[in-house]
Amino acid sequence: MTGTPESHHETPARIIISVDAMGGDAGPSVVVAGIAKSAKKNPDIGFILHGPEEQLAPLVARRRILRDRVEIRDSRNVVTMEDKPSQVMRSGKGSSMWATVDCVRKGEAAGAVSCGNTGALMALSMLRLRKMPGINRPAIAILWPSRNPQGFNVMLDVGADIRADATDLLQFALMGVSYTRNSMDIAMPRVGLLNVGTEEHKGRAELKEAYALISKRAEDASFEFVGFVEGSDIPGDIADVIVTDGFTGNVAIKTGEGTASLIRSAMREAFEYSLLSRFAALLALTSLKRLSKRIDPRRVNGGVFLGLNGTVVKSHGGADATSVSAAVKLAFRLAEQGFAQKLAARVASAGELNQDNTAAAKAGTAPK
Amino acid sequence: MTGTPESHHETPARIIISVDAMGGDAGPSVVVAGIAKSAKKNPDIGFILHGPEEQLAPLVARRRILRDRVEIRDSRNVVTMEDKPSQVMRSGKGSSMWATVDCVRKGEAAGAVSCGNTGALMALSMLRLRKMPGINRPAIAILWPSRNPQGFNVMLDVGADIRADATDLLQFALMGVSYTRNSMDIAMPRVGLLNVGTEEHKGRAELKEAYALISKRAEDASFEFVGFVEGSDIPGDIADVIVTDGFTGNVAIKTGEGTASLIRSAMREAFEYSLLSRFAALLALTSLKRLSKRIDPRRVNGGVFLGLNGTVVKSHGGADATSVSAAVKLAFRLAEQGFAQKLAARVASAGELNQDNTAAAKAGTAPK
Repeated sequence: MTGTPESHHETPARIIISVDAMGGDAGPSVVVAGIAKSAKKNPDIGFILHGPEEQLAPLVARRRILRDRVEIRDSRNVVTMEDKPSQVMRSGKGSSMWATVDCVRKGEAAGAVSCGNTGALMALSMLRLRKMPGINRPAIAILWPSRNPQGFNVMLDVGADIRADATDLLQFALMGVSYTRNSMDIAMPRVGLLNVGTEEHKGRAELKEAYALISKRAEDASFEFVGFVEGSDIPGDIADVIVTDGFTGNVAIKTGEGTASLIRSAMREAFEYSLLSRFAALLALTSLKRLSKRIDPRRVNGGVFLGLNGTVVKSHGGADATSVSAAVKLAFRLAEQGFAQKLAARVASAGELNQDNTAAAKAGTAPK
Repeated sequence: MTGTPESHHETPARIIISVDAMGGDAGPSVVVAGIAKSAKKNPDIGFILHGPEEQLAPLVARRRILRDRVEIRDSRNVVTMEDKPSQVMRSGKGSSMWATVDCVRKGEAAGAVSCGNTGALMALSMLRLRKMPGINRPAIAILWPSRNPQGFNVMLDVGADIRADATDLLQFALMGVSYTRNSMDIAMPRVGLLNVGTEEHKGRAELKEAYALISKRAEDASFEFVGFVEGSDIPGDIADVIVTDGFTGNVAIKTGEGTASLIRSAMREAFEYSLLSRFAALLALTSLKRLSKRIDPRRVNGGVFLGLNGTVVKSHGGADATSVSAAVKLAFRLAEQGFAQKLAARVASAGELNQDNTAAAKAGTAPK
């Protein structure tokens, strides 16, 4: 939608995604393999790839599918997993991550993807893209496998941010609703607020306040508020959007991922135990593959930064080619739907109402 | 160890467990089935069972194994899942839960088990048993399936408590170490402090302070401090004890449980998909059972309340007979080992030192 690189692209319909080739655990070759996978599946996608040119050029040249579809932009510096966000904001200019985000700011790309350090990526994205007017705190939303018909729930914030007040949580709810509507085609998403119990009297003060705020906005913002939900509802079917602060969300998804990965190993061990069980696994191969696809976290790789003037997708640091390709696909879909613009419109219309709500809650007039 | 009911018990070696028959989702018949299971497996166990006598007597009479091993204590009231803890503390006298805990206070039973409302059970336990001297905040510890050789990690607090300061987190670490040593036979447990990243600069202020306090106590309290850990390490192999506040811990375990349960359903569906996959499942039955046992949350049912003068085990509200029996077994083992007394001794010796540490941390002299 927004811009194509000035260079060798002859198909103006292509949507350009800006990709950081550096910063992932496995290095640029995996990122190049990932974009090649995307290029193969999707003829309407083009790339601007950021990193040291002498490393990237041979990797790209080796993939025929990438010919004329990738513009390499030379960046000398790499943001590492150990770099502090504050440090990256001061001295990150010239890094591949900075350049990746900046392409979105300049309108050269419709979305950005990076496997690098989450904190640094969020800091740079806020610095370069700026928060949308009316947003206090951007959030990172992920898809989580669930029992819902769509197969996934949206959870936010998972961004490791230390705290979120009631107004932040309301904004997360509104952004999550918009994201769910755009990425999953659900007209009336159901929103749950994560707590340690479903009873209204439980939990922290800011959660009770957020309960009142979100509840009040449900009707005019066209979502259903199901109230407090628990950790077990994140993969459940009573809500489509799970709202929480970045600390709790981050711990929850990592616990869920770790548990899923433990079960996968245990399953592998169980089927490798004896000759008979190996034979059974062979027979059950299709079933096992179907199962594995259903619970494969690589398929839902990609945390979307919400609340910024532009689309940034954070891919898992340990991403392989399949995961990188999933993150690219997500950035592409959101770009194609003009999601960032729709979200901005929604937040803008919600802006004044939020302030009304906060005032009402403080005056004790908010509904239960 | 402590006391047997005065009634029909002729084997004085029996350890008596006080069991709340009420308050679980499935009612008293499941609790009676659970204690019958325990009685069958373990000849050294006896019960005091609390609830309405006219309901319990026929249930108990139907199980031959329970003859002469159960004393029924009539209680008219039941604490429900909806009762607020504050309400239960005021008016809970005469409830089966109150009577269950009180048996431990009076020394009639060596441990208590209830499937009821967690908040109410903790409130009553604190009221009747009192906190150990030197403990600010009791905690609930659970076992979580992990990649460690022992197959489980200890995590605490999972009790849904709203906050924990640095000193609370230090005490959780010390209690968790003692519990791990007693329940898993690990001489030098490894302790991790749950955070959103493993870098020392990340996370909330109280976590950084707790890092310093726990780090300082590691050597003389004979544990290894592995520093910050993430959600993915809860089922991992880099720590044996995971320390966190009750809110985060509660969300994490429920997310993990929900994810495991989603995977179990998906697995069942996958194997029921076609005739071939059903046949494969039949062949793989032993492997599947082995796997299912490994990841069955019922096997590790039972949250232990730490920091009270007596042993209380909270069984899952949705517990079936197998889970109730697992919770009883846990209470029995801890009673047999005199765990409450050992923990009291450890906390007493740590008491003064904790204060030293807090002072040192505040004066900025604590190690990194």
